[in-house]
Amino acid sequence: MNRLDEALALVRGTVRAMKGYVPGLQPGPGQKLVKLNTNENPYPPSPRVIEALKAAADGTLRLYPSPDAAALRAEAAAACGVQPSQVLCGNGSDEILALIMKAFIDEGDAVSYFVPSYSLYPVLAVMARARAVEIPLPRLTRESDLAVLPAPSPRAKLFFLTTPNSPYGYSFPASWVSRLLEEFRGIVVADEAYVDFAEESSLPLLADNPRLIIARSLSKSSSLAGMRAGFALAHEAIIAEMAKVKDSYNVSRLAQVAASAAIADREYARSTREKVVATRARLTRELSGLGFTVLPSRANFIFAVPPVRRGARVLYEALLARGFLVRHFDSAPISDGLRISVGSDAETDALLAAVREEMNGRQ
Amino acid sequence: MNRLDEALALVRGTVRAMKGYVPGLQPGPGQKLVKLNTNENPYPPSPRVIEALKAAADGTLRLYPSPDAAALRAEAAAACGVQPSQVLCGNGSDEILALIMKAFIDEGDAVSYFVPSYSLYPVLAVMARARAVEIPLPRLTRESDLAVLPAPSPRAKLFFLTTPNSPYGYSFPASWVSRLLEEFRGIVVADEAYVDFAEESSLPLLADNPRLIIARSLSKSSSLAGMRAGFALAHEAIIAEMAKVKDSYNVSRLAQVAASAAIADREYARSTREKVVATRARLTRELSGLGFTVLPSRANFIFAVPPVRRGARVLYEALLARGFLVRHFDSAPISDGLRISVGSDAETDALLAAVREEMNGRQ
Repeated sequence: MNRLDEALALVRGTVRAMKGYVPGLQPGPGQKLVKLNTNENPYPPSPRVIEALKAAADGTLRLYPSPDAAALRAEAAAACGVQPSQVLCGNGSDEILALIMKAFIDEGDAVSYFVPSYSLYPVLAVMARARAVEIPLPRLTRESDLAVLPAPSPRAKLFFLTTPNSPYGYSFPASWVSRLLEEFRGIVVADEAYVDFAEESSLPLLADNPRLIIARSLSKSSSLAGMRAGFALAHEAIIAEMAKVKDSYNVSRLAQVAASAAIADREYARSTREKVVATRARLTRELSGLGFTVLPSRANFIFAVPPVRRGARVLYEALLARGFLVRHFDSAPISDGLRISVGSDAETDALLAAVREEMNGRQ
Repeated sequence: MNRLDEALALVRGTVRAMKGYVPGLQPGPGQKLVKLNTNENPYPPSPRVIEALKAAADGTLRLYPSPDAAALRAEAAAACGVQPSQVLCGNGSDEILALIMKAFIDEGDAVSYFVPSYSLYPVLAVMARARAVEIPLPRLTRESDLAVLPAPSPRAKLFFLTTPNSPYGYSFPASWVSRLLEEFRGIVVADEAYVDFAEESSLPLLADNPRLIIARSLSKSSSLAGMRAGFALAHEAIIAEMAKVKDSYNVSRLAQVAASAAIADREYARSTREKVVATRARLTRELSGLGFTVLPSRANFIFAVPPVRRGARVLYEALLARGFLVRHFDSAPISDGLRISVGSDAETDALLAAVREEMNGRQ
């Protein structure tokens, strides 16, 4: 065995067998792509965030940050109507999800989630050597569809619920989450990365349900994907357990400052949210008019299935050639559609014009 | 069982049994403490870092960061004379250490390290349900002392070597690390958080040793503790395995910008390093003159044992009452000394005056 093989033989078998992470297509500085593939907000963060960051970029960066992000915690708690002790801040909500795994899941435990939903869950399950119990999620369009949803296995210790779901955009009503918490006796993680574009959150269920953990992100509605900030909401005793497994200083000084300022500027958040929601309605309407099947979305993206004469992959490629980057998933059950982030009005106009040309030119 | 007990029963037993993290004493905004307890740099980051941060605090924060921190990776690689593919960036070097655990350690594997060294290693071992094999580290003062050092157990899969060590400040020569890599067949992690204040690094060993991983931090020598940035150096195939287990976007846009600018400004780093090293020599000399036993340090702190007539804990409390926060560890084998970060010249003058008064006033 040579030296490298000897070293690689020490890597966990689980990790060796994993595929390397392939970063999503990132347009280079020279490329003028309209980026509608990763659900970033088309509008910049609040001017108060930028101001606060410029003010905080000073000599105090030599000092460690607040280990529990005290000021941000208080700000998030106030915005959500909970106590600061019910909030745990993370380096993006991806870290929150990883911390949940670290706090609850031992090797061999079962973790469950709908498919399709956030593609990180199966990766987290593999890394923890947990059993992944995947439950097919139908395309829900009416509340009555919920009656036919399969429940998570009673053997699972934890259920990840992306709500609003990605890529479908469906938002699970709190009443349904409440029933889920009765029928399923494990931890329910309501992954609410997109909740600010929806009408309903699982937040009102928190007070009575210590088995509920809500994960929130600043990446989407607060336009801070580049800053890495998210938080968990749960019973304070559960938050205390999760805090044990985090790095001591997991959120930087500037991420704490930016996230606090973003949460505090509610008027700005409201106005960008309203713009995104209005554009989402228009995008849905116009694509429907072009023969697409568009699922009703409560997120900042839509899932649109092109008319049968056009394959989703072909349309994805055609749009890319025209300078529009949307998301196509190669695998079933979602390979028939495109997930398109809601852009600015100008981006949406341009995208719709490109789709129209593609659809008309090649009937 | 009530609802909360039912939820807490779902937490991993390992985590339930862990003590909650108790953040180090953080002076409040009103407290005028001289903070010499967590080895922060007394000098601010390079003015170019501040400039770069202010310039980068703009609307592009709405976009996700480079998943592999491409520009920072290139900058760190150039500074270390390796390829970018040999660098993995993290949210502080704490994340790098956690990623190493995640890539190499399964439940039941053995992890070894010297005691005393970085107190995070046993925590990482507990969380991974690994066996911790602790090796007592004597107080080394001469290179010949190395001959008596016990070797890590051949059964351990991984050995964490803090070099320079904390709290002793001893820097292990590369020749010793090289012998360690021959005798011990697991992964050797050279945790070089303090290396920029030393004369020697394990870096030259990297080319021939795919079982060596070097962890670096921007917190100490680059004065960026508040920013959270660190990186690993290793064989590119090992870096590729580690990259599989990290969060997709683990380092924020601003952390990438700040760390790149800090590494690029070598002249600034050299000048603050020289100041710290000169002050370290003076602090060592003057405390020795007051009867302290001061271990030879290659880090930005010293470990000083007060003369027998003064207990370390009592002196710690007395200094705190005078406005100086240093580090006292309550447990053996280091409860007889104080770890004191090297401050600015003015801070050091003031600290020495306070120590002198304490020692003289209470003989």
